Amino acid sequence: MTKFEEKTIATEKIFEGKVINVQVDTVKLPNGNESKRELVKHPGAVAVIAVTNDDKLVLVRQFRKPLEKTILEIPAGKIDPGEEPIKTAARELKEETGYEAAELELVTSFYTSPGFADEIIYLYEAKGLTHGDAEPDEDEFVEIEEVTIEQARSYVADQTIHDAKTAYAVMYLQLNQA
Amino acid sequence: MTKFEEKTIATEKIFEGKVINVQVDTVKLPNGNESKRELVKHPGAVAVIAVTNDDKLVLVRQFRKPLEKTILEIPAGKIDPGEEPIKTAARELKEETGYEAAELELVTSFYTSPGFADEIIYLYEAKGLTHGDAEPDEDEFVEIEEVTIEQARSYVADQTIHDAKTAYAVMYLQLNQA
Repeated sequence: MTKFEEKTIATEKIFEGKVINVQVDTVKLPNGNESKRELVKHPGAVAVIAVTNDDKLVLVRQFRKPLEKTILEIPAGKIDPGEEPIKTAARELKEETGYEAAELELVTSFYTSPGFADEIIYLYEAKGLTHGDAEPDEDEFVEIEEVTIEQARSYVADQTIHDAKTAYAVMYLQLNQA
Repeated sequence: MTKFEEKTIATEKIFEGKVINVQVDTVKLPNGNESKRELVKHPGAVAVIAVTNDDKLVLVRQFRKPLEKTILEIPAGKIDPGEEPIKTAARELKEETGYEAAELELVTSFYTSPGFADEIIYLYEAKGLTHGDAEPDEDEFVEIEEVTIEQARSYVADQTIHDAKTAYAVMYLQLNQA
């Protein structure tokens, strides 16, 4: 579909952060017009569907500064430079929840906000969970909540779960355990 | 869960764009340490699940500069300042696809990237579609593809659909039409 392509004429670097980079590209549109595109570059992330041996979904509650509130999500985190996503998944699961998985299976991946960011999330399903101690980063504060799939469904319905990847995970479990 | 709260000590404005604003907040963590948070402020968006009278899901193909490629999504777009999300949904559906809906029902909303952005998407289901002409913005280039739910499922499976909100929409249809 190259007929829709937007050719980059110029790139203005706006910000280089620890998590994101921001740039404004000037592009040539298919009709010859010029336009600006505001772009956020993100290293990508993983998220983990972890169901315990007694059939509970492992959720973590944490404060999300962009939202100025605490929300409930499946364990997730950014990919470190050069890190294999499956290693990120194992690391974040252990750090945030204490669980280790005998197996981590890639369920899918998806772009979260293709209109302005290139973030991709790799979604894993953890199998064969065993529990140790959580090892949060020094500056990471999370609280674990384990819920039945039915409870998770009601959390999606009443938007206690209000995060796309977590709602996705709950629907995935509904479709694959029915 | 105020015990996890991160108190803002300072805000540095980095960028004010047409779509996003970027800022870096210095925060005080629950353990007393200070940290930085890189934040993208977004006006929010809508997305529309539109199924035609012959049971096809309406998708749009468009070039997404952040990804440097063309992807397949449900119709979607940013909320204009002061605009009611349901109006955005009707507007974007008409602009991108030409369809008008007798009714637009809010299915849910979700945060797309709570780690770094406050974007929220309001997801609507369009009912009673009638077809007119698409009215894309002058600088918007989209191509419509209408697919059966079964085809959409296979697109999610093989990642022809590789966008969270669209994969969400397909799972929603699977769960609600079964």
